[in-house]
Amino acid sequence: MKREKGLLIVLSGPSGVGKGTVCGALREKDTQIKYSVSATTRKPREGEVDGINYFFKSHEEFERMIAEGDMLEHAKYVSNYYGTPRKYVEEELEKGHDVILEIEVQGALQVKESFPEGVFIFLMPPSLNELRSRIEGRGTETDDLIDSRMTVAKEEIDMMDKYDYVVENDKVELAVSRIQSIVTAENCRKDRLIHQYKQLMED
Amino acid sequence: MKREKGLLIVLSGPSGVGKGTVCGALREKDTQIKYSVSATTRKPREGEVDGINYFFKSHEEFERMIAEGDMLEHAKYVSNYYGTPRKYVEEELEKGHDVILEIEVQGALQVKESFPEGVFIFLMPPSLNELRSRIEGRGTETDDLIDSRMTVAKEEIDMMDKYDYVVENDKVELAVSRIQSIVTAENCRKDRLIHQYKQLMED
Repeated sequence: MKREKGLLIVLSGPSGVGKGTVCGALREKDTQIKYSVSATTRKPREGEVDGINYFFKSHEEFERMIAEGDMLEHAKYVSNYYGTPRKYVEEELEKGHDVILEIEVQGALQVKESFPEGVFIFLMPPSLNELRSRIEGRGTETDDLIDSRMTVAKEEIDMMDKYDYVVENDKVELAVSRIQSIVTAENCRKDRLIHQYKQLMED
Repeated sequence: MKREKGLLIVLSGPSGVGKGTVCGALREKDTQIKYSVSATTRKPREGEVDGINYFFKSHEEFERMIAEGDMLEHAKYVSNYYGTPRKYVEEELEKGHDVILEIEVQGALQVKESFPEGVFIFLMPPSLNELRSRIEGRGTETDDLIDSRMTVAKEEIDMMDKYDYVVENDKVELAVSRIQSIVTAENCRKDRLIHQYKQLMED
């Protein structure tokens, strides 16, 4: 029993929690879900490929896309833009495909305004100490930047209340498996299925 | 991250849909969930064991338990009582264990009055024709009884609206896997976790 429209899944959480790693592992394990590629003005990290990990844009290009309404959401984080091109997401949902967005907390709340029926998942570090270790472990930030990221992270964790689910990222494979269960469960929700079932019973 | 109290899962659906088979398969696969044993006044079918499949009671015994408030829910279906002894369920939930009830539709709606926070799963046949075949296949019913069961089943399907999830019982192993996903997902619901997380962040 397939709904007419796909499910929009929004995976978010504080910076450094491991959204990218979890989303990458989910992508390898589940080839049914469509992955929206975000746009960003930040520099590519080693190994990141334009159009696969992100669409890497200049500030000018990004601001033009915002102005033209081509972004489903966008946020400025530290000094860079992150955003989700709207077109791909809407097209895939219309085809009945489930789509996942891996985005920052500010952006997720913007998406919720357009898609209140979306499934909002908050990825959570096992503890704040563990979060700090993960941010430090990246080795790309100065101490001041780490402190500033931790302050932002705590504010972001306070936003948990706006989400539907909280998934602990204790181990990547466990987090991935929980997210897959959430997608399966949401596809069984009565509210999403009842019209098709009433139809089936009348036929 | 474990909630303080267990999750009450109610598996229901029209008579003949295969609740018992699905619940038995879930029981073999998942030894964490506690299974509430129902009481009934109907005769044991071949292979059914008292205290395992049901507590088999006389009409007099059953009515005494109702009168003494020992039943979480009960229903009279065709000419027999079915019900859930209250004590076991409440004790296991208090210990933090998830508990599953496999019960008739009338009973499920009674449980919802006492446990609105429970997870209500409606097991659905792939079609009404398939449901009739399954009822006929049991070989325990006359034609008149089959017709009467089908009428009741259609009324029960109209109750789907009162449930949280609809799980199609196309194949037992698929239905079991969907139910396991629902349990995992419900254990990740923000509303069930947020108090513990706020605590964790303050520590």
